[in-house]
This record gives sequence, C-alpha cells and structure tokens, in this order.
Amino acid sequence: MDHPFEFPLELPDRGSRQRLAALHGQLHAAILDGRLKAGLRLPATRALADALGVSRNTVVAAYDLLLSEGYIVARRGAGNFVADVAARRQAAPAPATVARNEHRLAPYWRGAIAMPTPMQRGAFPYDFRLGLPDGRPFPYDVWRRLSARALRHLSKAAPLYGHPQGNPALREAIASHISFARAVACEPDDVVVTNGAQQAFDLLARVLVTPGKTVLAVEDPGYAPLRSVFMASGARIVGVPVDAEGLVVEELPGDAAIVYVTPSHQFPLGVVMSPRRRVALLDFARSRGAVIIEDDYDSEFRYSGRPLDALQTLDRGDAVCYIGTFSKCLFPSLRLGYAVVPPWLCAALASAKYQSDWHGNVMVQDTLAAFIAEGHLARHVRHMRKIYAERRDVLLDALQQHSRGLFRLWSSDAGLHVAASLPASIDAIALVERAADNGIRLDALNLCALDPAAVNGVGFGLGAADVQRIGEGVRRLVELMDR
Amino acid sequence: MDHPFEFPLELPDRGSRQRLAALHGQLHAAILDGRLKAGLRLPATRALADALGVSRNTVVAAYDLLLSEGYIVARRGAGNFVADVAARRQAAPAPATVARNEHRLAPYWRGAIAMPTPMQRGAFPYDFRLGLPDGRPFPYDVWRRLSARALRHLSKAAPLYGHPQGNPALREAIASHISFARAVACEPDDVVVTNGAQQAFDLLARVLVTPGKTVLAVEDPGYAPLRSVFMASGARIVGVPVDAEGLVVEELPGDAAIVYVTPSHQFPLGVVMSPRRRVALLDFARSRGAVIIEDDYDSEFRYSGRPLDALQTLDRGDAVCYIGTFSKCLFPSLRLGYAVVPPWLCAALASAKYQSDWHGNVMVQDTLAAFIAEGHLARHVRHMRKIYAERRDVLLDALQQHSRGLFRLWSSDAGLHVAASLPASIDAIALVERAADNGIRLDALNLCALDPAAVNGVGFGLGAADVQRIGEGVRRLVELMDR
Repeated sequence: MDHPFEFPLELPDRGSRQRLAALHGQLHAAILDGRLKAGLRLPATRALADALGVSRNTVVAAYDLLLSEGYIVARRGAGNFVADVAARRQAAPAPATVARNEHRLAPYWRGAIAMPTPMQRGAFPYDFRLGLPDGRPFPYDVWRRLSARALRHLSKAAPLYGHPQGNPALREAIASHISFARAVACEPDDVVVTNGAQQAFDLLARVLVTPGKTVLAVEDPGYAPLRSVFMASGARIVGVPVDAEGLVVEELPGDAAIVYVTPSHQFPLGVVMSPRRRVALLDFARSRGAVIIEDDYDSEFRYSGRPLDALQTLDRGDAVCYIGTFSKCLFPSLRLGYAVVPPWLCAALASAKYQSDWHGNVMVQDTLAAFIAEGHLARHVRHMRKIYAERRDVLLDALQQHSRGLFRLWSSDAGLHVAASLPASIDAIALVERAADNGIRLDALNLCALDPAAVNGVGFGLGAADVQRIGEGVRRLVELMDR
Repeated sequence: MDHPFEFPLELPDRGSRQRLAALHGQLHAAILDGRLKAGLRLPATRALADALGVSRNTVVAAYDLLLSEGYIVARRGAGNFVADVAARRQAAPAPATVARNEHRLAPYWRGAIAMPTPMQRGAFPYDFRLGLPDGRPFPYDVWRRLSARALRHLSKAAPLYGHPQGNPALREAIASHISFARAVACEPDDVVVTNGAQQAFDLLARVLVTPGKTVLAVEDPGYAPLRSVFMASGARIVGVPVDAEGLVVEELPGDAAIVYVTPSHQFPLGVVMSPRRRVALLDFARSRGAVIIEDDYDSEFRYSGRPLDALQTLDRGDAVCYIGTFSKCLFPSLRLGYAVVPPWLCAALASAKYQSDWHGNVMVQDTLAAFIAEGHLARHVRHMRKIYAERRDVLLDALQQHSRGLFRLWSSDAGLHVAASLPASIDAIALVERAADNGIRLDALNLCALDPAAVNGVGFGLGAADVQRIGEGVRRLVELMDR
C-alpha cells in the first residue's frame, strides 16, 4: 500500500524537520476538515513510517505534536485515535474560510496554525514533567496579605497608568535580590520587568532583530519558545552544539549577532557552562560586537558548591542581557520575569515594552516587591531547595539502581530537572508515549533539538514529582524499556 | 542671529513632521550629552521659531514632547528650562556608549530613543486629563474578596501555566457581557484576552503586517499608540480625515489592508460614526479584503439614546476585529483587555499571544471573571455613568457660559471626554502649556494628528475632574486665552 489513509500525503524527499512539518500539517488539516474522522484509530507509528518511507522518529514526533495539541488522543494499550475536535470547538472555522482568508495574514502566520493549548491537568501517578515548580508549599497566606495591602495602596492613589519599566519598588527589590543572590551588577534603572522570561525574549527580538539579516545562535538542543519568537521576528536561527562544558563556543558562526545561552543549567541537558567557555563567549561577543542573552531560569536551585559567576557579572563589554523569571522560584501563572540590560539597550527595551502592553499589572508587581523586600522570596527558595534536593537524591539513586546503564545522565548540580540520554535502540519519543499510557509523565529531549533525530533522551522534572513515588516511577519506566 | 544655541541645529526644508522630529531629536541629544546644561532657560517658542524659520507650532510641539519626556521642565510664568537629567539617572549611559552600540539595534530603534516615562501624579486643582477613569468609586472591597477567593483556588490547583487565549471563565464572562451590552456576536472561543487594548493592537500588528507592504489606514487625528506599534512592525501608515460622521470612508486609500476606527466615540474628536459610513466601511472591507480594527474603548459610557450597532455586529465578511478594554470601565493599572476576532484569525492571534508572553496573570483573570459574572461590572458601569454624566453636563454648561464661542465643540453623547476645536489665533499647544502653569491640566488634540499643525484643539477629560471645580477650571482657562 502507498499509505494507510484515503487521501494523499505528500512529504519532501529529504530533511527530517521538513518531513515532520509536512506530516504534522497534513494530518492536522485532515483532522480539522473531517477527512480523518473522530474516533478513527491511527496506524501504528512503525507501520506508517514504513508506508511513507520515513523514519519512525518522524511519525512519532508528528503524533506527539498532535497529541499535545489535542487533535489525537492516546488510549492505554490501544494506540492513538482522532480526537473529537468538533465537540471541542463547535464554532471551528470551516477550513475553506481559513484558507480563503489566509492571504490576509503576514507570511510567517500562514499555513495551518494550530490553536495553542494549555498544559493539561492530567493526573499522572508518576509525574516528571519539565518546567514546573511545586506550588503547594508556597506561602499563599503571606501573598494574600501583601496583595490586600497593595490593593489598599492602589485604592488610595489616583488611577494612573504605571511605569513601563516596571514598578520602581519591584525593580529596587529585584536589583537587590540578584545583586545578593547572583552577584549580578545592576541598579533598579537597568531592570525592565516583563511578563515572564518569554516577554523579555520577545522584546529583545523586537529591538535587536533586523528581519532576514540578524543571525541568532542558540544552544542545540535548547529552549524552543525562545527560538519560536525570534523566528517570527525574522531572525536567522543557527544551532550550536552543547557538550559537558555547555555551548561549544568554538562552533559559533562568525556572523552571530546574538547568542542565547543558559549557562547555569543548560536547557534541557542541565550542564553548567565551564569558566573557560564563559570567558571564550565573552571574548567572542566583544570581538564580534555580539549580544549575549543569558537566561538564568532556575539558578536559584543549586545543590552543591558555589555557583559560577554569571556572564553578566563578568561582562566588561556591555554585551550581556541577563534574564530572570519568577515562574520557577514562585509559580508560573504569576507571569513575572525581568531583563537586566546594558545601558545602551535600556531605553529601547522599555519603549518596546511600552509599545507592547504599556506596563505590567501594578498590584501584582507591588505584591511581589513587598514579598521580596520582606525576605519571603529568599525564605521560600531556601525551603524549596531542600525539597527539590531530596527529590533529586531519590531520583539519582533510583536511576542508578534501576537503569542498568540505559540512561546516561548529564552531569549537573542545579535546577529543577535531570536529563538523561538513551541508546539509539530505545526511541525516546516512543518511550514517552508508552510511559504516558502507563501513568508516567515525562518529556523527550528530542523535541528541544532543531533536528529531533539528532538527540535521543528524556528529562526528569522534580517540580511535579511525588518523592514517595519517584523510585517506583523510574522502576516502571525501565520496565517499559524492556518491552 | 542664526539661532539661540551654541551648536548647529539642522532642520529639513519642508515637512512639518520631519522638522518636528529633527528639532526634537537634536534638542533631546543636546540635553542628554550636556551641550544644553541643566537649568538653562530655553528660548521662548516664538523667538526660536523665528530664528529657525519654522512655525511656532513646531517648536511648541517639540518642547511639549521634551516636557512629557522629562527633559525640560516648565516653571510658572518663567518659561522652559533644561531638566537635571543627570540627577534623574545617575547611571545614564554616556551618549558615546549609546552611539557606539546603536548599530546593534534593529533599524526602527536607532536614534535617540527616550526612556518612556510614566504618567505623573501631578496635583492639578483643575484636572481634565484624557484617557483616565475615576478610580475612587471602584468597589475595592469586592475586588479584594474575589481576589482572595481566586488565590485560594490557585493554591489548591497544580501550578500549571495558564491558557494562552485567556482563562476560560473570563472569556465566558466577557463573551456574555459584550453580547448583552454591545450585541457583539461571539462565543468564548472567539475571545483572546490581552494585557489591555494595546497588546491586542500589538498582536494584530504581528499577525497582519507584512513589513514594508501592508497599508494601515488610521483616523487622522487618531490614537497615537496604535500608530506607533504598527509603525514599529513595518506597516505603512496612511491618515484618513474624520468629520462629524466619523472616518471619511470615501477617502480610504484603495490599497488599505487594515482600517483602524473608533466608531462609538472617535478618539480624540468624540464623534460617533454614522450608520451610512458604517455600511460603507464594511462594503470597503468586503470588496477589498481589508480587515477592520474596531476599538470600542469607552463605549460603556453613553449618555443618551441607543448606541449604534457595533461594526462587529453588522459584519458579514469576517472582517472585523473588535477590541475592548477594562482600563476605562475599571482601572488602567489592571492591564486587561480583549480582542474578539473572526475564526480565521483566532488561532494565529492566540499563537502570537503565546509567543509573546504565554498568557496573562491567572489570578487576576479569575478575579475579573467572578467580578463580571456576579454583576459587579454592570453595576459599577451604571454607577460611573451617572457620575460622568453629571460632570459632562457641568462641563458643557461651563463651556457654553464662559467660552464666548472660542471653543467649537465636537458633537458627542458618549465617552470620557469632550473635544473642542480652537480658532487658529489661539495655539492649543501653547494654551495647554500656559494652563499647566496655572494649575489646569488638559491635553492638546494637535499631537493626535499625523501633522500636528493640521489640528488645533483641546480635550476635556471627565475621569480626573472634580465636579465642583469644572466650572472654575473652564473660566480660568478662557481667561488665559485672552492674554
């Protein structure tokens, strides 16, 4: 047979990313317009891969994307089925309408743009999801009290618009917090408060990228949401490999105008950038006039030794934009982060923020300012560090005990997750899929790479994991690998 | 004399906007780098205009911009002085550093970008500022209670990221609120929650503008922050005149791909778009494939008669993006607004939101959802409508009693401000400046126009005005016009 569907699937001859995009897009369109009906069982990944003459990884990755978008559902032991999209969205536009209007969109947004779906509140007994902190120990009572106080202040003030750079009290609190915790050299005037780290990336893309020209070098594997916003702004993205010392600086393209790095805890591998590489990267930036985006996303959680100096601390060339977030050390639905930028960039960045959404919610910013100033942030981080350290120890023990050398761990002593490579014989994306069917939630590192076929591994997040179940979760996962 | 400064000022021979930009930019740079020292008295506007051979309006507008940016300060009766910029920002970058690094910025952001400054909490006895609601009667106790409840829910849920389109409960509440209040036809799935209307404009610019190609037609005079974000995204902006029936649809450029309008209460003139023009605009959109951005920013406040149907309600061509905000009916520091868009645009817009900052603050959205669902929004709007209606009646009486025909009022029966044209003999920008020196705060409409010389008038905002002082404020203002 040509392939198991009753409509043509056309995939490019080469380029695994291109093939993945084409396969995903065509299945997605067929589900939306009803050629693939709700409830239909999709072919097994291996069968479809053979029929199409592509690697199984490609089919698995396409299914994974459709799963994450909610267009297909996995049923335990039975395979993947087309979801009931019509029920989910009665008013879904007829695809004809979408296609007819597509020319009205800017080029980047043409093609089947899927509605982004929120993280699902699935109840997985063994939850190793990446990127989530544990929100339960958060001192909500303190937050409620400070929040009520902020509202009282607001009710007495004139109802003005706020400061585009961020509330002065919050910038003050952030500057003193990171001066102390990370030796980042900054004044409140160097801080721009943003809606999470993601908005900091967005604003930087706006003010730094000349569409079609600016080259952004990223760690590969690396953080996909950063790539996505820079790609939309017209940057040319070049992946640079990562090894045990972090970004391989020697392989940076000479024309990179911006370099994005996560030196404290590389995302997703977890390695710490070595001092040697830090110096080399700063040299590169100085000699080429490049800007460095230093994403210090979960540097608060370090389990041994002294942290290395931030690139921002070492920078003598006004090159480093230091990005922090409260999504990991507090909670993500707060949507607060910040950028500390060199003086030449500050007015442009604040103006971009102003143009983008004027400023952040004043009451929430005031609440956080008081939370930091009164020492609650430092206390909460200390408390959580102990909790995560215990989970991490249990996890590392379990991996050693059960994995029989199948997991090669990336060395790391910080952060909210542990990364492990898998031998080529075990397909990480398929394993993740099988694990989900068995109550174990974890993420494949493959999708963090520019070429999903180039990386094969999984990440174990500590934020959502129940310490009592970590050992059993790992044991069951390894069991699945034998099947 | 050539001109009163000891350094060359070079202005283009023609184009009042170009001259304004050049004059502002060069004065701005001279203040930043110290050629114009703190405390120096600037030449009177007329003297500088004569010396430079430009219109006085141009100089007044340049001074006004510098005033709003905080680079110069006005002292009562004594004129304009260079501000102490060094004191304001000790760590201000040496201009040499800024200039040396300027090539690292994307082209749009090069040149002397001024740090955006927040609205000043000036204490003006007579405050007619535009764009501010009165926050004092807001039911803060209700908000505090609902906010504590939202926090309790959050503390019990897993700490997930939220929904990119906005919390479902808030979209539900918004959809039912505007279906009822504005007969806007929409489902919760058509709503994208944004950080104020400004982020809705930003997201639309992202997904609709092809840089250098897309033509955006705007009302002229009109809302400058909308122009600014579309300009940064590379749109070509074309101004279209406004008359007593709103946007002059017949003068729309044939290649306009996007048309921005404020039909309920034109900003800043306040006129309501006539039914005839509404139909003509929808016809234009249908025949040209154009998108209409309908900004319904203060439609909640209508003082007589039935509101006209929104363009969104009349639209049969999937052309209208309806934008609403809670900055006027609640308070601006909340930063919440929304877009209701046709189905073909929804996934792209939500994806752009996701790329921009993932989603809004979950707790604040939940609080607002409950506030709307429990009827507090409708109640607050009814309450405020009475308050503003009284202020408006007092204002209109005072203008009639004192103005001796100098103010030509734009007819309007809605919104938070009243607009008035002035005869050419009275320069609105100079009047506003003189008024500020005399305790009266109001805004010139001139700066809302693409060519500040093309419009001459002022707006009287009702949000910050003390009803007891409106009459006296108008009397004093008219007195100043005689000098």
